[in-house]
Amino acid sequence: MKKSLIAASVFLSTSAVANIDAPKNIIYMIGDGMGPAYTTAYRYYMDNPNTKTVEPTIFDELFVGLARTSPDDDTVVTDSAAGATALSTATKSYNGAIAVDPQKAPLTTMLQIAKSKGFTTALVATSQINHATPASFAAHNEYRRNYNEIADDYIDVKVNGQLAVDLLLGGGYQYFIREDRNLINEFKEAGYVYQDDFDKLKSIETLPAIGLFKETAFAYAIDQYPNRLSEMTEKTLSLLDKNKDKGFFVMLEGSQIDWCGHANDIACAMAEMKDFANAIEKAKFYVDNNPETLLVVTADHSTGGLTLGANGHYSWHTDVIKGVKASVSKIAKALINTNNVSETWQAKTAISLNKAEVSTLVDKVEDAKRDKSEEETKKENLVAHINQLINDKSNTGWTTSGHTAIDVPILAYGSGSEAFKGHFDNTEIASKLINYIKK
Amino acid sequence: MKKSLIAASVFLSTSAVANIDAPKNIIYMIGDGMGPAYTTAYRYYMDNPNTKTVEPTIFDELFVGLARTSPDDDTVVTDSAAGATALSTATKSYNGAIAVDPQKAPLTTMLQIAKSKGFTTALVATSQINHATPASFAAHNEYRRNYNEIADDYIDVKVNGQLAVDLLLGGGYQYFIREDRNLINEFKEAGYVYQDDFDKLKSIETLPAIGLFKETAFAYAIDQYPNRLSEMTEKTLSLLDKNKDKGFFVMLEGSQIDWCGHANDIACAMAEMKDFANAIEKAKFYVDNNPETLLVVTADHSTGGLTLGANGHYSWHTDVIKGVKASVSKIAKALINTNNVSETWQAKTAISLNKAEVSTLVDKVEDAKRDKSEEETKKENLVAHINQLINDKSNTGWTTSGHTAIDVPILAYGSGSEAFKGHFDNTEIASKLINYIKK
Ligand SMILES: [Zn+2]
Ligand SMILES: [Zn+2]
Repeated sequence: MKKSLIAASVFLSTSAVANIDAPKNIIYMIGDGMGPAYTTAYRYYMDNPNTKTVEPTIFDELFVGLARTSPDDDTVVTDSAAGATALSTATKSYNGAIAVDPQKAPLTTMLQIAKSKGFTTALVATSQINHATPASFAAHNEYRRNYNEIADDYIDVKVNGQLAVDLLLGGGYQYFIREDRNLINEFKEAGYVYQDDFDKLKSIETLPAIGLFKETAFAYAIDQYPNRLSEMTEKTLSLLDKNKDKGFFVMLEGSQIDWCGHANDIACAMAEMKDFANAIEKAKFYVDNNPETLLVVTADHSTGGLTLGANGHYSWHTDVIKGVKASVSKIAKALINTNNVSETWQAKTAISLNKAEVSTLVDKVEDAKRDKSEEETKKENLVAHINQLINDKSNTGWTTSGHTAIDVPILAYGSGSEAFKGHFDNTEIASKLINYIKK
Repeated sequence: MKKSLIAASVFLSTSAVANIDAPKNIIYMIGDGMGPAYTTAYRYYMDNPNTKTVEPTIFDELFVGLARTSPDDDTVVTDSAAGATALSTATKSYNGAIAVDPQKAPLTTMLQIAKSKGFTTALVATSQINHATPASFAAHNEYRRNYNEIADDYIDVKVNGQLAVDLLLGGGYQYFIREDRNLINEFKEAGYVYQDDFDKLKSIETLPAIGLFKETAFAYAIDQYPNRLSEMTEKTLSLLDKNKDKGFFVMLEGSQIDWCGHANDIACAMAEMKDFANAIEKAKFYVDNNPETLLVVTADHSTGGLTLGANGHYSWHTDVIKGVKASVSKIAKALINTNNVSETWQAKTAISLNKAEVSTLVDKVEDAKRDKSEEETKKENLVAHINQLINDKSNTGWTTSGHTAIDVPILAYGSGSEAFKGHFDNTEIASKLINYIKK
């Protein structure tokens, strides 16, 4: 593969879906970092030990294909920005690109096309709503970390003179209410309802609306609001349902599967997968009742080099993982703030330690307490130690704090889902959806 | 999942394929250890750097589904014996089981059913032909390492008074020509042609036949006979083609993808994948010319915890891997036997080392030379060091010397291939094939 622009196949490949009726509504869900090790892990993690068989999950039930994820260079491994740009515009770009091509020119996204066709549109994430994946559906930027510029785009990049996204739900109000610009006021002036209290999610009853419930991202599902994505999914679909005459397009992201993967924190990842799975169940239920709707679920890449089994052991211990009740980061904080390390460890993880292990853990906690550096860096060694305990005792393997290149699952259900059976480039998922939207 | 016998679904699930015509011939190919990281890796490894796109491989082209692989206990991670038993009998058993159930009672295999229906049958492997995967199609044993007993079964376990396998190709004559029993003589008495020289593979022109070309297994493809499986596949299909009036069943195994994975040797694994891919191409070509034939390809599990990307780097360097010309084990031997470590390293790997790296490598080679232990163990540290150099420079990750639980790819092509689209338990692949054979 040469470093070069690959033209979007949007305008070329209509024939493949020409004889399939286009769905009226599209629900597009992206599990950030959700490689096949995560969907596999989740099945065994959820398995009922009292039944004779391993129960298939929603990921198994709706599985139809795999997608290739490499970006437009020779690195093979994509980031979330290039991944989301491929999934939203059908064009390969460079790592860091937010809906711009390798020459940094803006690319029209499927959400923008949907809006131009009169669809109602929505973006939902558990990260800040201007993070790479949702950003690549409604903003254009040469670099994913330009969070303020990306937030501005949600107001400034109009489609036929209108705001492009009718519903935004997620975190990130610090980027929207700034000294230099108050985007929330601008949304309100444009007629949007605004809500910043997640406990009042139900109060949003009309569109357009914007709900930003955290300064930046939500906490991990394992630490707070375990069902925040599935609750936002249910709310979103009920709001869109009122507008379904025009058709709708929504992208919902399980943003933090990736973040738990970066942290090599398996219990954290499984809690994110559970929230994402429940959100998919809500979407499937909607399709069951509205069969003119298409549900497509995929991932941008896999994260962390997760493997089920490690260090020569032929087993993966889900019971260990099921007992862990907080993110490793939060466990570290709790251990630093407790007078009884052993008791707090037991309460947070349910993992039995022998005397030598307890003694080592106590030493690590004391080291972390003595450390005079910033709150976050001061517990780095302790976090690494806790991670190692959980990963070693469950035989969970990791190879990186970054991403890997393995192909990712595609799930599809409902109207037009046949077109996603098989093996595709991630840009082909986008081009199929764009073709449907253009019909 | 409770530790218990799961009844084979063979006799229950006929309805699922009831309205599909059964294929006349079945070509079943198993890539031992070939998890999705291997099929993904192979695509990028084979990519032509002079074209703008990443070319899909035969694995992408024929991809239809994923399979779950857990054995019949709570370990989640399977071995090749339980995996092959599931894939040949549609019954979950314990790790180590060769076509026996958890109570160690023999299970009828699809090859035995095929033989009882009058099909011509064949088993082909690059390991010894009595290794776990082929063994689970024609032998029954409580433990995979009972190699002599398993070899005996190829003569002793008859179907309707006949030998069950009409063609056996692979390695392992040390298990067949023993002091206590000469199975080759028994095969000859039963009318089989015997060949032990791989360079005379072409001389086998009639069935029944047995070709055992090595004492135990073939060498790694990267070290000798890079196309041994694809050549055996071509020969097998030409022999079976002469008997296609009766229908045929053949299982061909890419046995050593797994072994390179156990060794965490990425260049070795890619050479095995290339031989397996070429063998699949031969099988596909046969189906194209004989459309009443079904080709199904899958794996028993993944091996080594392979990840593409590692240690925080967002890249996987195929150019490094493409330059390596021998297995790590053979490179170590060459370095021990050379007078010029730097020159031999360059010749075998094409990887540039800086002065410090050369100096460390020379030290490791000297250590290996001084070591007075057995030939194999004496180079263990050197092998580990070479592995680390290649893996670090290519950003290849591994987490184990054993297996992992990730779901594995299913490819299908030809008559009846529609039935394999989606997500299945590995036993379901077997039950679908058995249903076809029984028709
Ligand atoms: Zn990430
Ligand atoms: Zn193995």
